[in-house]
Amino acid sequence: MLGGSAVHFSLAASFFTDVRVVGPVGADFGDEELGVLEGRGVITDDIERVSGGETFFWRGHYEYDMNVAHTDDTQLNVFADFDPKLSEGSQHAEILFLGNIQPALQQRVRESSNAEFAALDSMNFWLDNEREALVRAIGTVDCLLLNDAEIRELTGEPNLARAARAAMEMGPNVVVAKRGEYGAALFSSDDYFAIPGYLLEDVTDPTGAGDCFAGGFLGYLDSRRAAGDSVLDHGVLRQAMAYGSVLASFNVEDFGTDRMQSLTREQIDERLREFRRITTFEVEAPS
Amino acid sequence: MLGGSAVHFSLAASFFTDVRVVGPVGADFGDEELGVLEGRGVITDDIERVSGGETFFWRGHYEYDMNVAHTDDTQLNVFADFDPKLSEGSQHAEILFLGNIQPALQQRVRESSNAEFAALDSMNFWLDNEREALVRAIGTVDCLLLNDAEIRELTGEPNLARAARAAMEMGPNVVVAKRGEYGAALFSSDDYFAIPGYLLEDVTDPTGAGDCFAGGFLGYLDSRRAAGDSVLDHGVLRQAMAYGSVLASFNVEDFGTDRMQSLTREQIDERLREFRRITTFEVEAPS
Repeated sequence: MLGGSAVHFSLAASFFTDVRVVGPVGADFGDEELGVLEGRGVITDDIERVSGGETFFWRGHYEYDMNVAHTDDTQLNVFADFDPKLSEGSQHAEILFLGNIQPALQQRVRESSNAEFAALDSMNFWLDNEREALVRAIGTVDCLLLNDAEIRELTGEPNLARAARAAMEMGPNVVVAKRGEYGAALFSSDDYFAIPGYLLEDVTDPTGAGDCFAGGFLGYLDSRRAAGDSVLDHGVLRQAMAYGSVLASFNVEDFGTDRMQSLTREQIDERLREFRRITTFEVEAPS
Repeated sequence: MLGGSAVHFSLAASFFTDVRVVGPVGADFGDEELGVLEGRGVITDDIERVSGGETFFWRGHYEYDMNVAHTDDTQLNVFADFDPKLSEGSQHAEILFLGNIQPALQQRVRESSNAEFAALDSMNFWLDNEREALVRAIGTVDCLLLNDAEIRELTGEPNLARAARAAMEMGPNVVVAKRGEYGAALFSSDDYFAIPGYLLEDVTDPTGAGDCFAGGFLGYLDSRRAAGDSVLDHGVLRQAMAYGSVLASFNVEDFGTDRMQSLTREQIDERLREFRRITTFEVEAPS
């Protein structure tokens, strides 16, 4: 079914801002797939169709612990030889998200972009196989998003707070540790923030949750940037983390992109308020 | 070194209320060990010294993931034949905590207590070896505290929210899922609450963190009960969860009971305010 980092990210971010998606697809990516993106207003001008090629493909499975995806098959396909050429519009996007793909490709896209705030997501596969290229790519971005176990692996530091500080020394001034159902933690030069996951009774498909988190997080940041706020403001980053969590929580309720297609901004804001209610405690006893 | 569920719990709870500890010790438990408890005002009248006996002993180790304790040795020793006789004062305690030990023993203590709110902690060892006795003991208490993986194992339900509901059907009307460094979640008949862990850069020894959580949680609940509040009030339970997290976070900063011995109520309340600051997000954009 339709999926992938760029698709999940774009749909989630589309609730907050204009989104342009850049990447190659094969002949198997048809009007139906494009229609899912365009149905949410995503600008698809930079989707490059490779004639005779096949779209990137991933298949995995989940066992008892839905926090861990087991990869059964990865085919880079059209990504193997992809040479990104960003349109004028994409080059001038103020916020850039580099979805999980070869680190060298992420770096090339970052270097052809004028974004004032670039974020990068990756995974253990690249850490294990292209560590040096990944560290170089991380050095070019402002924000790193990784699973907490991957931040530990990247830095060789078992303590997450220390691992995040070590990752910041590689370049980014914001590090987001994704913790699956346990939520997420954010580290910046002078702040730290943590939220639990929004707990659901029905988790249908966790695939894409991390990308929807990134979409909600960066999409909301861009909406605040457009309103004149700094994306490094503590309060703005915290709200962005909460929106990211809410978007991820919706995505896992159904397979593929189904929930993102039926979702509304009203449902997002309603869940954000509920999320705040179930995570807030008072410090003083009521008098 | 000095440790064990009752010791860690008592020290943590002692910052909020009067604590009586019930249990057997051997000849190896001397004035120094008693002094640690009495130094925090814990009432030790119900500690029964078994002449010629040896105190309960546990040894374990931690690997890269400090959330998982690996048991190397457990010796029940004086607990094997312990027949609890609660003093008048202990029988009339309004809140009772049944630390992690044989479920049948927990049940006997619960049945000789007049507590209006009884809580029980256990572990996978009893789940695997004395499941029926554990389920019976759970049926006699108001609150169950377990690791999230253990709640899933107890109920055979992989989804935590559903697993907590299934555990409530066994008797308790409050279920607390302990999630190690990821924090904790609370389920009651009509509410749900989650907090992340207080993230530390230096974790020295996670042993006893769960019992310190229980001590902060139940100790604070008792202080509110004494002030005329309901321990089932949502806001009271949430604050209790936050205090439990803070006590656990202090305990892991040093080995054994060292940090609890130097801790002050001022430090606890200062960290509680910091904890609230780093877990709070706004819902509306500032105008």
